[in-house]
Amino acid sequence: MSTLWKSRYSLRAREIKSSAIRELLKVAEKPDMISFAGGLPAPDLFPVERFAEACEKVLSKHSAFALQYGPTEGCEPLRAMIARHMARYGILAKVENVLITSGSQQALDLIAKLLINPGDRVLVEAPTYLGALQAFNCYGARYLPVPVDGDGLRTELVENALRLGPKFMYILPNFQNPAGVTLSEGRREQLALLADQHGIPIIEDDPYGQLRYEGQHLPPLVVIDRQNVRRDEDFSLGNVIYLSSFSKTLAPGLRLGWIVAPADVIGKLTQLKQGADLHTSTFTQLVAYEVACGGFLDQHVRQIRKVYRERRDAMLHALEEFFPPEVTWTHPKGGLFLWISLPRGMDSQLLFRSALAEKVAFVPGDSFYTSNDLESYRHLRLNFSYCAPEQIREGIRRLSVAVKCQLFNQSEIVCSPDAALANKA
Amino acid sequence: MSTLWKSRYSLRAREIKSSAIRELLKVAEKPDMISFAGGLPAPDLFPVERFAEACEKVLSKHSAFALQYGPTEGCEPLRAMIARHMARYGILAKVENVLITSGSQQALDLIAKLLINPGDRVLVEAPTYLGALQAFNCYGARYLPVPVDGDGLRTELVENALRLGPKFMYILPNFQNPAGVTLSEGRREQLALLADQHGIPIIEDDPYGQLRYEGQHLPPLVVIDRQNVRRDEDFSLGNVIYLSSFSKTLAPGLRLGWIVAPADVIGKLTQLKQGADLHTSTFTQLVAYEVACGGFLDQHVRQIRKVYRERRDAMLHALEEFFPPEVTWTHPKGGLFLWISLPRGMDSQLLFRSALAEKVAFVPGDSFYTSNDLESYRHLRLNFSYCAPEQIREGIRRLSVAVKCQLFNQSEIVCSPDAALANKA
Repeated sequence: MSTLWKSRYSLRAREIKSSAIRELLKVAEKPDMISFAGGLPAPDLFPVERFAEACEKVLSKHSAFALQYGPTEGCEPLRAMIARHMARYGILAKVENVLITSGSQQALDLIAKLLINPGDRVLVEAPTYLGALQAFNCYGARYLPVPVDGDGLRTELVENALRLGPKFMYILPNFQNPAGVTLSEGRREQLALLADQHGIPIIEDDPYGQLRYEGQHLPPLVVIDRQNVRRDEDFSLGNVIYLSSFSKTLAPGLRLGWIVAPADVIGKLTQLKQGADLHTSTFTQLVAYEVACGGFLDQHVRQIRKVYRERRDAMLHALEEFFPPEVTWTHPKGGLFLWISLPRGMDSQLLFRSALAEKVAFVPGDSFYTSNDLESYRHLRLNFSYCAPEQIREGIRRLSVAVKCQLFNQSEIVCSPDAALANKA
Repeated sequence: MSTLWKSRYSLRAREIKSSAIRELLKVAEKPDMISFAGGLPAPDLFPVERFAEACEKVLSKHSAFALQYGPTEGCEPLRAMIARHMARYGILAKVENVLITSGSQQALDLIAKLLINPGDRVLVEAPTYLGALQAFNCYGARYLPVPVDGDGLRTELVENALRLGPKFMYILPNFQNPAGVTLSEGRREQLALLADQHGIPIIEDDPYGQLRYEGQHLPPLVVIDRQNVRRDEDFSLGNVIYLSSFSKTLAPGLRLGWIVAPADVIGKLTQLKQGADLHTSTFTQLVAYEVACGGFLDQHVRQIRKVYRERRDAMLHALEEFFPPEVTWTHPKGGLFLWISLPRGMDSQLLFRSALAEKVAFVPGDSFYTSNDLESYRHLRLNFSYCAPEQIREGIRRLSVAVKCQLFNQSEIVCSPDAALANKA
């Protein structure tokens, strides 16, 4: 009968596979393992006392509201706070432009539900965020991958892809997951203009934008669209849907994200969210509001930036110290991730296995690509936010042992690209 | 450009309309209105102090876990508690058979994602839970409605419908939303047997099962399937997926529900949930665990039963006292809702407008049907859990004024069924 259930699954459910990261994280959970695999914030930075005060306040003053069913759009005070907060980054959203979601993963799911018909193509960065692919896959998306370099998406390749008629572009402009790269200002302008010219909307996913450790904040695509492309204050006419989240600034365990979009689009997304989970927890929304209010969020983000910058630097220094010159990596100006490129022909899946033997874990890069070509197998994603600096140094040392060992083996045996690919079949 | 967004919507998004209840609830929110419209638990019963203690404990002892990303399946202690809790009702689930969802609305969305291909038919009770229709509609479901009577689904009509090959049956056996009726034990056995014979699975939605105010608890379909139909202890072979929730026993604002299913099915649902929202809030899960543990949930449910029974009785007495003999209603043995049937030709949408003038609100019955035939317009759903007994009496008195007025008008003017239907177009 268990096979009977399988025969009942929808076509979309049959196509979905479990995330590779998910399986890897299970392995990486062993106690003596140093893990650069997850995308986890540092738990020692969670503002626990502030949360305790917020819970007490919410339950003593607003319990009848906090524990009851709430509006699908989200609680008004939190939506208003988010609108105010975003205005400082030039995003002139009103309350009606903000939808609270159950983490920004739900934002991706709802946007996919809103826009994707089976077979529709989505222009994505190569590599791109795995969770977005998981959300889009459920709705039958196909992909038009465009590579990134050190300045983010290679916009000179976008026009050709746009001619193939994608339904939308999915872009992570700041400290991209997984590559850690940031879309340059010039390319932002170019991309927003191309989007407008071709009538293709942009989904701008920005969970890390506030976590910048050096350089100047760059204007979001949603702002460039309004100011430089349309030269129009009217938010309702925009071509960009913007997403962000409290997961990297307050706590992921709350599952609180948001979508900023024209009010009509928010209205339709609200209808879809109603069928998906009625609404996001009123309790966590009110708690997040109480934690974030009165300037605490900014103050807390400054503290996070300081700690994560030290960790990023610790990882960059350790890579310089231990890694062989054949291996290269990105220098992220913010966010949580750094992207390693191995010499051609090397295989991050094989490396993963030998790294586990050295008690260090990461995510092999192929998970972040929409097609399994050889290029996708020579990268790895390293997270630098979760481990303390001394652990980071030790983990990179361990990883360098595995890397050098594989480099040595590769020079010994003739390792054909075909053999590396066959290994995945 | 706002219309440009509309042109980009997926076919599924274009088909979805906002819930009628949602719009009604906005009207019903006015301060001098007595509302029987929502399905809201009584906020004065929320165990606020217990919640405050739980938050304090979770944050002081488990903050690094409670505020972090968590497993998609849900937190192990909560899943284990739910498994133990369900064993007392004969549902012998292990931890691996339990998936925590963001309210049972998400359970419905995930099950639809798992099972429904566009055009697949779902056998539903007529009337049935509106939120389930909203979830299923997003995946292109069509329906095979089978009417209910005072003993629940009319199982003698099920076999013919099963011959038309529905993908699954969606059944609310206890104190059904909206009709308040309960599937009799004989019919449960008949239904589980038919499901097995035809190889059609049952989705058993049971948010109200614990809120029984009179009579004996009846065995869930998932238990009958195992004990009477298959005579087999092996849960993995079952033909029923069971859903429930903390929304009616602890607090809906937490957004916590669960699915009980064979482990393989839970595995596939977990993959779908990963794309939908990664996981449900770890914080609310741990808080719910701390609130519910040590026998508190049972003790609290006893208190809820006492209060809601009084409110149900207040509503039944007021209906006897004020309503004209042409109008009939169900006598729910539990749950939150009571179902009114108006004489043929009367129209609950017209009644709704005159009821608003009398400052009382309800949900017109047509929202709970999959087809707009005349029958669907002569019912109304009344909630009895939210208002205090004296408010209930006053609200029913007001409603009786609107009902009598419409009855009088109907006897004055010739009201054709066609005219009533045309009114909806």
